[in-house]
Parts: sequence; structure tokens; C-alpha cells
Amino acid sequence: MIRFYNGKVLTFAEGFDITVAEVWIDKDKISFVGNPTQKELEEQFFEREIDLDGNLLMPSFKNAHTHSAMTFLRSYADDMPLKDWLTKQVFPMEAKLKGKHIYTFTKLAILEYLSSGITASFDMYFKLDDYVKANMDAGFRTVICSSTNDFGGSPEQDEEDYLKFNSISPLISYKFGCHAEYTTKLDTIKGIAKMCQKYKEPFFAHNSETKQEVEECIARYNKTPTELFDNLGLYEYGGGGFHCVYLNDSDMKIFKERGLWVITNPASNTKLASGVADISKMLDIGINIAIGTDGAASNNALDMFREMYLVTGLQKLRQMDASACPANDVLYMATVGSARAMGLVDCDTIETGKQADLIVIDLNMPNMQPIHNITKNLVFSGSKKNVKLTMCAGKILYQDGVYYLDEDERDIYKRANEMLKDF
Amino acid sequence: MIRFYNGKVLTFAEGFDITVAEVWIDKDKISFVGNPTQKELEEQFFEREIDLDGNLLMPSFKNAHTHSAMTFLRSYADDMPLKDWLTKQVFPMEAKLKGKHIYTFTKLAILEYLSSGITASFDMYFKLDDYVKANMDAGFRTVICSSTNDFGGSPEQDEEDYLKFNSISPLISYKFGCHAEYTTKLDTIKGIAKMCQKYKEPFFAHNSETKQEVEECIARYNKTPTELFDNLGLYEYGGGGFHCVYLNDSDMKIFKERGLWVITNPASNTKLASGVADISKMLDIGINIAIGTDGAASNNALDMFREMYLVTGLQKLRQMDASACPANDVLYMATVGSARAMGLVDCDTIETGKQADLIVIDLNMPNMQPIHNITKNLVFSGSKKNVKLTMCAGKILYQDGVYYLDEDERDIYKRANEMLKDF
Repeated sequence: MIRFYNGKVLTFAEGFDITVAEVWIDKDKISFVGNPTQKELEEQFFEREIDLDGNLLMPSFKNAHTHSAMTFLRSYADDMPLKDWLTKQVFPMEAKLKGKHIYTFTKLAILEYLSSGITASFDMYFKLDDYVKANMDAGFRTVICSSTNDFGGSPEQDEEDYLKFNSISPLISYKFGCHAEYTTKLDTIKGIAKMCQKYKEPFFAHNSETKQEVEECIARYNKTPTELFDNLGLYEYGGGGFHCVYLNDSDMKIFKERGLWVITNPASNTKLASGVADISKMLDIGINIAIGTDGAASNNALDMFREMYLVTGLQKLRQMDASACPANDVLYMATVGSARAMGLVDCDTIETGKQADLIVIDLNMPNMQPIHNITKNLVFSGSKKNVKLTMCAGKILYQDGVYYLDEDERDIYKRANEMLKDF
Repeated sequence: MIRFYNGKVLTFAEGFDITVAEVWIDKDKISFVGNPTQKELEEQFFEREIDLDGNLLMPSFKNAHTHSAMTFLRSYADDMPLKDWLTKQVFPMEAKLKGKHIYTFTKLAILEYLSSGITASFDMYFKLDDYVKANMDAGFRTVICSSTNDFGGSPEQDEEDYLKFNSISPLISYKFGCHAEYTTKLDTIKGIAKMCQKYKEPFFAHNSETKQEVEECIARYNKTPTELFDNLGLYEYGGGGFHCVYLNDSDMKIFKERGLWVITNPASNTKLASGVADISKMLDIGINIAIGTDGAASNNALDMFREMYLVTGLQKLRQMDASACPANDVLYMATVGSARAMGLVDCDTIETGKQADLIVIDLNMPNMQPIHNITKNLVFSGSKKNVKLTMCAGKILYQDGVYYLDEDERDIYKRANEMLKDF
């Protein structure tokens, strides 16, 4: 058992209160949150006792939309118009990706996630066996979202993957989805709808990322992507959309009524000049919101602190109102919201019986001082530098700048750089 | 003498080339940049030799607009409309500030600057003796900008401060300015113009931060703030404006012709919902651009990596063009540009004879890998976590998370938190 003591805890069990409490971890689960009596303490055997030194323990961040292995394209092509970037740079490079590349560049992404306090990813990419192996080797949690489209994948393959990856490890799960309306034939989308209904599962896809995507969908089907997906029965068991920059009122109504998740990716939408999602309106309506980094090619960091600042900041600019999209709402999206969007309902809060997916935030750094308000400090001045410890499923994978994985991070960097010659 | 070896150097002496070279520091200056012969090496006595381990040495960031001591209001009041924030929260709190508060909260800001790779600030606040003492005690470089306005300061006081603080220490300098047009009587502004002309010095002020500010200035004088200042002869010896969100074509013409500096503060303009400056247009015209964080009450971080990402990101969104405002331009603004805006012409590049104001960037971190392009990595995925070492005037003030100041950082945190009860 691991004991965290002498610190503060933000549990998210009830609101945003921060209390002084101990947290105990038994194997992969949280076994105690509170202030133990001397007797309770004496009855336990702790293999490790960690002095929090007044710092903050809280649920880890979950990255609700990413393409982890796209680290291979970080800073390869930037400051380019979106269409050129995608067709001339990204697609030709992706065509050369082999399993070994997926493995190594996923490992690289996992290092970055851990250093930013992220313990789980909702990932959409390909070569899933290699992808899964990278996560399992690292001890990292991931939810795969099918990326089926006209260039790869099929409902039949999805069913096979669904059955396989949902039983392979407690760290791995799999959700139905497709890349996007504009990349997937109607028949394929209908086939995926059948799977969602057969297994009573939610559906996820890129949705309304750009204005052009929505306009072209309306031209094709006289429906927005959200209306089309809903019409085909894909949302009968919930799900959500990645990006959602251009949802209209009808789309938002569907999201609200179906309990769907908007998974917002502000850094990617900024860097690719896609636009700013109307998160304030979604909050007002009561739509569920989660946050993702998107892949490293379009962000370029896998850093939830950047995303949180942008979620609130861009709303303030969009509404020209400094009170738009308050910090606590954003912190909730990045932790509890993202976990629930991904179906990780045991990884959302710090409560007895929940999975021990948590982080320790170093408050003894200048950007966290003075302490008027810790949650606002986290969103408005927090940085990945404040991440002192990252624990996934009860295992410390990162602490004080040191990674505890199956291989040394320098070996991953070295292999990643050597692999660049393959492209 | 200090020797940095086994690393890469971005000198900014000529473009953005990164080379393999050693950098030697003699007292406060750079004494050698290059690849020495064995003989040259043997002839030197190094008191310290630092193995860069393949990492990057480059000019430090300079924070070209800030109010350092405003760390006392970090996360005190956020998510509020701008007018309420300023009149109900900031002004009443500032009225209670004493010299000891200025000293301690400036020290806190300096810690944050150092951890973000910033070695100099262009600061506008008050109680200058306490402010200067904090900087000198810490060994930090600062350029004071007068904040004269209707509530404090005068041209006569400015002249006294100018003469005093420009001769007090090589780390301290002083520039003429006023808080802003909207807070300063015309007679006072005219008095400052006389000082600028008497001493052949540039002039700086908050300028066109909000739409309302510009509209009200036009209503008062039938001129924009820039036109008014220019008309009064304030820009005869150069200078610049902080924020510059709402410059019109006539203003930009004045900035270009006078060689004035636009000092942009994107995080503050975002959080206070002021708007997005047209940096792309300024770049096209060839206006000088520098970057500042503004104070911690309106940002809330003092982090140049956040600013750099926002400078390019917000332009991409503003122009709806992913190729807007390329990364290298932004990196130049944050280093060379900011130094020159502040008059620190000896602190801009890594060249023999220049001041040793420099940083080491840790490339052996996942967010800097793989290495397709180091300068793009710095702007698009870099973080203060990558700052491995910060040197100001030849002294290492921060290395590997440890501060080398005149007092322990925990004492500063403790005092800062205790002082909150004074407000």
C-alpha cells in the first residue's frame, strides 16, 4: 500500500473544495481518503509513504482526443495553410508509417502525457496492435476510438477489434467510431451504426472541425454531421464529437438531449486556424464537455495546461467578456469530464474504490504563489512544470522529472530520431 | 571564467542557424563563441565547466511589459468583467501596497521569470526604491518605465528618478513614460515630452489596449493616443506602446516611421477580453515587435512560452490562416526584439562582448522530440519546464530547478502568503 500524507486533496467528489487529507492506494485502487486515527495508521503496512510537503493531490488529466503517434510529425511542417499541410505533408508521411514507428512515437507521446499529468488518452489512429503494446509496456491507460474511413477499417474489423481490445487488459478499452463524415462512405457509417446498436455502445467521430466540413456535409445529405449521425441511430447509446467548432443550434440540441460529449481541442483549432468552438453557449445549455490535445502535428504540445488556458481564454475573446467560461468549469472538463467522456467512470475522482489515476501538483513554485485560489492558479498560471508525480492504475510512472517505464526515455528519443530517416 | 561545452547554440547573430559551439563567460560578458583549439582551451582557466549534454544555449527571454509586484493579486479576482475587475478589485487593493509588499512580490515575480528563462523585465509600477532593491538583491536586470499619471508621479519626479536609477547599478535602468493617455492630464504629458527632448530619450506608455480607450481619446483630442503622443513630440527619440491592440493605419504609419516598438501582451489581452492585436499586419509593414507578459493579475502567468504560443496562435485565428505569424518571427520578438525595445542592446544576442544574459533549453524532454526543427519546437511545444539554466549578467540564478538568490524561495512564498492579510 502507498500512503500520501501531509498534503491537500482536491477530490472532485463534491464540488471544488480542497481539504487536508491523506490518500492511500491499494494496488490499482484508492483505498482511503481522509484523516486516519493513530490506530488506523498503525494497523496498516505501507510499502511506501510519500510526504506531500503541503502540495496538492488531485485526479489526473485525461486527454479525450489525440493521435498519439503523430509525435513523429511534431514541427515537421507548421505555419502552412491547412489544406497543404494535410495533403502535401501529413498524408504522404502517414502512408510510410510501420508498426515499429507507431510503437516508438506512441511511447514518446506517453512520456509527454505523463510529464503533463495525463494518465489516459482517447486515441484515434491505426496499427492498433503496436499501439496497444506501447501503452501496455508503459503501463499507460488508453481508450481506442476506431478511425475507420474509406482508406482503412470496416465495421467488421471494428467488431473484431472491439471484442479483442476490450478484453486484453484493464488498461485498454475500445469504442466504436469513424474518422469523420467527410472521409467515410455512408454504407460504412451505417455498418458502424449496426455495431453500436448490437453492443449498445456510444459513437465518436471528428465532427464539425471546419466550416467547409459542415458545408460539404449539408450539400451531400442536407444535414449537418451531427444530424446525419443522429439520424442514422449512431447516438442511441451516447458518444460525442471531436472538435465541434461549428455546431449549430440543432446540433447542440441533439448533443444536449442525447447526453453527448463535446470534446474540444482549442490548441489544434488555433494552430490550424479552424476557429473557436462556442464553449460558453454549450456550458449554458448544459452540454457535457471534455478536453483533448489532438495530435502533436497540429498542436504541437500534448499539454493539458495549455489546453485549459486556451479553453477559457478563447471564450473570453470570443464573447469579448472577461467573465466567460470560469476556471473551475475548465478544470472539471479536463479531469472528470474527460474521464467520463472516455467511459473511464472509475478514473474520474479521488474516492475510495476508484482507480488510482492521480497527480501531485507542486504548489511550492512561484507560478502557484501566493495562494489566493488554488484551482484558479491551476488553470490561469499552472504549467506542466508543476506536475510533481503522475500515477496510473496505482503505479507511479513519473516523479520529480524521472520516468518509471519499461525503457529509458533517452532510448525512446534516440530511436525516434533515427526513425525520421524512414520518412 | 565559465565554459559551456558539448551543446548547440542559437546566437541570433545571423538568422536562426543553430550550430555546435562552445560559449565562454568572463565575469558579466560573453568572451568566446566558437570551437576552440586544444591550445586555446589549455590557455584558459575555467572556474566552472558546464556540460550542455547536447542541449541548446540561446539568448534569454526579456519581458518587455510587466508590473512585477502584481503577483500579489494572482488569482485574487478572475473571470470578471474588466471594469469591475479594475475598479472594484485591483485599485482598492493597490492603494494598500507598501514598500515591503512591493519588495516581496517583486522577488516572487523574479523567481517566476527565472524559471521561465526571462532575465530582464520592463516594469511599470511604483515605490521604485523597494522595487529596485528587490532586483538588485536578486541580481536581476530591470528597466523601469515611469508610470506617472494623475494619481502619482510628475515630470519633475521622473527627472529625479531618471538621473538616480540610471546610475545606480549596471542591472538597473530607467525610461521616461506615463501610465496611459486616459489616466494622465495633458499638461503632465507635455511635461514628460520636455524630459524626453531634454535627455534625447524614448517614450513608452500603455497605448490602445482597449477600443474604449481609443474612442475616448479621439473624443477628447480628435486624435488617437499614438497621434496625440507623436504630435506632442514624445516620439522624437523613439519609444513604443504597451498592448497596441487597436492601432489604426495612421498609428501604424507613425510606429513604422519613428521606429517605435509595439510591445504585445497576448495572454493579458486574452484573459481581460481586450482583443487581438494585428501582429501579422505589423510584421508585413516592418514594425518592431517585442513581447511582454503584463502583470500576474491579468495573465496570470509570467511565462514567455505561453506568450509566444499565443502571439502566433491568435494571429492564425485572427487571419483564419494557419501560415500567419511564423514561429521564428515570434522567437525573435521574445528575445532580440524585447531586449532592443528595452534599450538592452548589449543583451540581445550570443556574441563576444555581449552581456551574458542567456538560457539553456533542455532538448532531452519529450515535448522537444523528435528534432525536426528546434526553433519551431520552442515556440509550438516548448514549456518553462524546458528551461534548464538561466544566467543574468554572467551569474547563474537558476539551474535544474534550484534558485541561486540572496534568500530561499520558500521564505519568499511564506512572506508573500503572510502579507495577504494586509489587504
